[in-house]
Amino acid sequence: MKLQSLIKQHQLGLLFQQGNFGLEKESQRIDKNGNIVTTPHPAAFGNRSYHPYIQTDFAESQLELITPPNGKLEDSLRWLSAIHEVVLRSLPENEFIFPFSMPAGLPPESAIQEAQLDNVEDVKYREHLSKNYGKYKQMVSGIHYNFQLSPEFVKAVFSLQNEYTELKDFQNALYMKLANNFLRYQWILVYLLAATPMVEANYFSRNGVENSPLAAEQLVRSLRSSPYGYVNSPDVVVNHDSLESYVETLEEQVKAGRLIAEKEFYSNVRLRGAKKARELLEKGVQYAEFRLFDLNPLEPYGISLADAKFIHSFLLGMLWLDETSGQKAVELGKQRLYQVALEDPREPTTFQAEGEAVLHQIIKMLKTINADESAVKTAEEKLAQLADPSQTVNGKLLKAIEQAGSYKALGAKLAQQYKAQAFERFYALSAFDNMELSTQALLFDLIQQGINTEILDENDQFLALKFGDHLEYVKNGNMTSHDQYISPLIMENKVVTKKVLAKADFNVPKSVEFTSVEQAVAHYPLFEGRSVVIKPKSTNYGLGITIFQQGVTNREDFAKAIEIAFREDKEVMVEDYLAGTEYRFFVLGDETLAVLLRVPANVVGDGVQTVRELVAAKNTDPLRGDGSRSPLKKIALGDIELLQLKEQGLTPESVPASGKIVQLRANSNISTGGDSIDMTDQMHESYKQLAVGIAHAMGAKVCGVDLIIPDLTKPAEPSLSSWGVIEANFNPMMMMHIFPYQGKSRRLTKNVIKMLFPEVK
Amino acid sequence: MKLQSLIKQHQLGLLFQQGNFGLEKESQRIDKNGNIVTTPHPAAFGNRSYHPYIQTDFAESQLELITPPNGKLEDSLRWLSAIHEVVLRSLPENEFIFPFSMPAGLPPESAIQEAQLDNVEDVKYREHLSKNYGKYKQMVSGIHYNFQLSPEFVKAVFSLQNEYTELKDFQNALYMKLANNFLRYQWILVYLLAATPMVEANYFSRNGVENSPLAAEQLVRSLRSSPYGYVNSPDVVVNHDSLESYVETLEEQVKAGRLIAEKEFYSNVRLRGAKKARELLEKGVQYAEFRLFDLNPLEPYGISLADAKFIHSFLLGMLWLDETSGQKAVELGKQRLYQVALEDPREPTTFQAEGEAVLHQIIKMLKTINADESAVKTAEEKLAQLADPSQTVNGKLLKAIEQAGSYKALGAKLAQQYKAQAFERFYALSAFDNMELSTQALLFDLIQQGINTEILDENDQFLALKFGDHLEYVKNGNMTSHDQYISPLIMENKVVTKKVLAKADFNVPKSVEFTSVEQAVAHYPLFEGRSVVIKPKSTNYGLGITIFQQGVTNREDFAKAIEIAFREDKEVMVEDYLAGTEYRFFVLGDETLAVLLRVPANVVGDGVQTVRELVAAKNTDPLRGDGSRSPLKKIALGDIELLQLKEQGLTPESVPASGKIVQLRANSNISTGGDSIDMTDQMHESYKQLAVGIAHAMGAKVCGVDLIIPDLTKPAEPSLSSWGVIEANFNPMMMMHIFPYQGKSRRLTKNVIKMLFPEVK
Repeated sequence: MKLQSLIKQHQLGLLFQQGNFGLEKESQRIDKNGNIVTTPHPAAFGNRSYHPYIQTDFAESQLELITPPNGKLEDSLRWLSAIHEVVLRSLPENEFIFPFSMPAGLPPESAIQEAQLDNVEDVKYREHLSKNYGKYKQMVSGIHYNFQLSPEFVKAVFSLQNEYTELKDFQNALYMKLANNFLRYQWILVYLLAATPMVEANYFSRNGVENSPLAAEQLVRSLRSSPYGYVNSPDVVVNHDSLESYVETLEEQVKAGRLIAEKEFYSNVRLRGAKKARELLEKGVQYAEFRLFDLNPLEPYGISLADAKFIHSFLLGMLWLDETSGQKAVELGKQRLYQVALEDPREPTTFQAEGEAVLHQIIKMLKTINADESAVKTAEEKLAQLADPSQTVNGKLLKAIEQAGSYKALGAKLAQQYKAQAFERFYALSAFDNMELSTQALLFDLIQQGINTEILDENDQFLALKFGDHLEYVKNGNMTSHDQYISPLIMENKVVTKKVLAKADFNVPKSVEFTSVEQAVAHYPLFEGRSVVIKPKSTNYGLGITIFQQGVTNREDFAKAIEIAFREDKEVMVEDYLAGTEYRFFVLGDETLAVLLRVPANVVGDGVQTVRELVAAKNTDPLRGDGSRSPLKKIALGDIELLQLKEQGLTPESVPASGKIVQLRANSNISTGGDSIDMTDQMHESYKQLAVGIAHAMGAKVCGVDLIIPDLTKPAEPSLSSWGVIEANFNPMMMMHIFPYQGKSRRLTKNVIKMLFPEVK
Repeated sequence: MKLQSLIKQHQLGLLFQQGNFGLEKESQRIDKNGNIVTTPHPAAFGNRSYHPYIQTDFAESQLELITPPNGKLEDSLRWLSAIHEVVLRSLPENEFIFPFSMPAGLPPESAIQEAQLDNVEDVKYREHLSKNYGKYKQMVSGIHYNFQLSPEFVKAVFSLQNEYTELKDFQNALYMKLANNFLRYQWILVYLLAATPMVEANYFSRNGVENSPLAAEQLVRSLRSSPYGYVNSPDVVVNHDSLESYVETLEEQVKAGRLIAEKEFYSNVRLRGAKKARELLEKGVQYAEFRLFDLNPLEPYGISLADAKFIHSFLLGMLWLDETSGQKAVELGKQRLYQVALEDPREPTTFQAEGEAVLHQIIKMLKTINADESAVKTAEEKLAQLADPSQTVNGKLLKAIEQAGSYKALGAKLAQQYKAQAFERFYALSAFDNMELSTQALLFDLIQQGINTEILDENDQFLALKFGDHLEYVKNGNMTSHDQYISPLIMENKVVTKKVLAKADFNVPKSVEFTSVEQAVAHYPLFEGRSVVIKPKSTNYGLGITIFQQGVTNREDFAKAIEIAFREDKEVMVEDYLAGTEYRFFVLGDETLAVLLRVPANVVGDGVQTVRELVAAKNTDPLRGDGSRSPLKKIALGDIELLQLKEQGLTPESVPASGKIVQLRANSNISTGGDSIDMTDQMHESYKQLAVGIAHAMGAKVCGVDLIIPDLTKPAEPSLSSWGVIEANFNPMMMMHIFPYQGKSRRLTKNVIKMLFPEVK
């Protein structure tokens, strides 16, 4: 297979670099001291019978976090970050994720519970593993790296070669080459990336008897990749000369009872694309799973982007090499792996020259195929590490362990640190921070509950969700198939909204527009005795507005107010005045799920601090930020705020009396520093029912309804003096309710998921 | 009741002028000679058991057209126009609407069929009328004018008076005053507006015996309002002194068997608001129906806006008068009515002075209440007509009859003329011509089928439709509750659309964007062998575009095309090229209802005419107009067209050979003079099914899908060379399919109604 020359000759370098990636990361749940916990898999993570993101591996305590396949490793790391944030924020307060592959603080074997999966066979398989290998070996964790070559690349090269007549056979040969060469040279990755130099002594105990094969204080490169990791019995031999021989010999092992199932064959590469190996011959290998990798404890998610990319370069290198390893080379590779794994990580390796030769080839390849400079740079750094083990992951790790006292202590410290980091911006999903907070919250819940999620358009907040065969699309976190198209169109049009609501007998303020003083005054009898507000059609800073809160009772007052309004605009509106406070009702289906009060930007005096200091103090709230990437906005002290202060006879340097509320804005928008206060429990039920009715009248399932209510504790009555509705919003910002300034958080995104997928329990 | 002084004192003039109006217009269906037809009520007009707009009065041939209530008479007239256009365009080709109240060409009585309504009682009642009065008298038609005072006005005046303690009693008194004063002075309206000066002799025959009470050639003002019209037997007397006495005496007549039911009491005013008169005492009169008015044959819809407004002024005048007529005055009024009705219409009336006095009062009132100048002007014209009968409706009509030879001949001529007018812009509903044509077409069908329709926002094309309790809102003719909100959001986003369709395995052209020549060329292997189009991201007049229709086969050609594209923009797209013709598929539910081909503006040479002449000739097509108020646009001869001609070596003065197609535009938009050609029947079924599937994949019920197809006769295959989809449209212009340039019209609006109201048969 002359891959190298074909790529060069036909300039396929770019296509060669394309592919799909997926990561699976195992790790143990621990307590704050680094001891593995024996609690069940948290219920918050939904049902493992279908969860695409959060699973358990061998043990109930052993989380397995799985990223969906991505065309870019950057996206795989983003997903890994997002899933971690979900998991870390959902764990019990006293639980953490251990960042090392080798377990610490192992409980007695009897206390280790195999993962309690719904499928009985899955549990039985784990019980078999416990019996055959002991539970402790199964507690070792790592990262599995899934890689698929671009199918376009495979097709392109296939069409240029003559060796194979069937695409499937060519594809199988490609993946066999990749697998075998990887197995031949995997020791290089162990040297560079391994991070299991030691383990607590009881790891080697079985049935209470300690029996460590290592000398006291002996350090190795990778216990996990060594014969002391989880390895098959030496009599399990599978032949790698061809896919056919691989399939046949693997099946023989199972037939002979040396393996309970094909999956018990522990190899650092698994060929993927079918349930049974034999099917690969027909279907063709679709991708390969590389299982070699220790968790990097110095990375919050167990692997760095640079290392993930280097592994990709390495894999391409394995294809690029002229040689194609057969069974003998694979066996040699295994020997070297074991040998390197048990070398002293502080020393260079015996096989340094071979490693350097391979890396030189990889660097040359990267340059030939026009890879990113950063990829070349990383490979060059790795090359240098072959001469300088202190720069390998192990090298850095050993220093950190030394400082912490033990790997368990370091693991516990890092686990706490990583968990704390995940809470820093608890309202966001950092990896998807360019999306709206409501969508980030929804993504959080989707990941947590295990709904398959695809981001169709990040800028447009467009998601595709799938549960089984049930597909749903969501935009902006709440625009779905459940709402009728006509509903937002009604809400978009204020005139139509009012007519529709009036038809359905809701209290809608009437308004009439006039183009002359005479015309308006002639209509006075229409308004006599009614509470009205008279205002220019376009208002600026409230100029020209007159409110007859108690009802307008004489024509002269009315005419005067009309004249004042006409000084500001050519059109004047007379509108029913709604006295009271505006509340936002969030309706979903037949229920008002949240009620919010928005209060203009303000500070409360303490008799000591200046307004400026009070503002600064209030702005330290973690919820406050720029307002787009944070639920609330920091209060400014700009012209408008200064004017507002001035009207109250204050400056930023004034010291307001204790308890005195200083208003810094006239408007109550969150986007200008306002406070959001959850009032769901305080609001009288009757208004909540009204809001539902209003949403229904417009055919809306998900909807924000703004009601003006003078007294939220009194039941609603059928008159404008009791309540009134101004408008409804078809894109209600859920995040206001999820992250209020005061009051209870309402996790509305969960309700959206429940609406879309009622079948998810 | 000191209404006048209260209105003056409290400046209630404007409120006094507000109200609600409705018109009911009867008329006979006739043949082209003016003979009443004996065909059944056309099935096109739906079911009379619920139809709100198109009913039959006494006879099967006697249409009754009903406008919904409106706050403005202008709107009532618009509705009357719209209903007329619907009726005239839906009648059989050889049927027309007779514009006179008095029938002509009466068939033998036995051939006149009473209206065949679903309700047996309704039919029986008509049979009773036939027996009691003879069928001919029942064939007389007229206009009923419904008027409701503004409820705000009634409330305002009620609160200012002391006579009544109950609003309902005050309201009843108001309407009694209106009714009685109207009955007292109705002769004035007969003098001014009557239009039944004669009738064919056989109108007076009963059972074959002619018995005209009129002298030969005798002309009268209004046969219809005379004792020779449809009047009760003289022994039917109802007392108008109060609502109570009215109710009691009316009930007595029925009890005594002089009337079969209250509705047989023929009065020129009916008090409305309850099924039975007695209920009015409890519920209060809601509005009054004035039944005096002859059809004005000189108006296409039987009444002019000016006269409708004058009637309103007259009604206000009846309330304005200090006097409140009682039974004696009502009887006097009836006498005068009969007398004036039988006067010679060419002469002034005996009661000219009384009429002038009343009109003087009305004019004074109009000025006092600040009515529109036009209202005052009309009233003054009517005042003048009391001295000059030639200016009354009768006066003008008699001249027209003389010219035509007979009123039957005039009626037939006008009937044909009005029907022809209704077809002039057959694609529009003239009264609602500021709305989109698709919405006009929908309105047409709604009126025809009898779905209650309210226009919520004309500019926004927003309708509320109601059938029984079933309420639906529609925007732009096809945006409804049946579509999911997420569907248009998907279609709005091209990236998401492509992803969603690709997920569902439809043929979607892939496109990749590049920001440098090097980057693009490096991706060449992705495109090798594929038909692609290379283009700047923003294209101007097609500059920089290269199409590899047969597939790009070498890197140099590809690189060259990439360079050319980069000369025009900083970003370049390489997209799968779809060879073929673009067709628009209109999908509704599970069906493709229409397929349209759009062809760029063009003319076909005849070897004689110049391009300019050919364009002018093509532009005479009635479908062509400004493109917003017409289904097609006139072809322009502007810069772009001249350039297009120049490229073909032509000028507007060239004479293309016979059959030669001269293209005047490169783009196929209808809005630039393109042709629309219906291809529904020609299109292979497989593509129609694909379009439905595409709509479904986006969750859409109503949707326009654009497919590129090289050969519409061959079945679709699963490759881009067979067909491809570019985009879908959630606001597909139905009118393109309803009014194509060539091919069959597809009345999609009917399908929309069927979708919304499946219960309507």
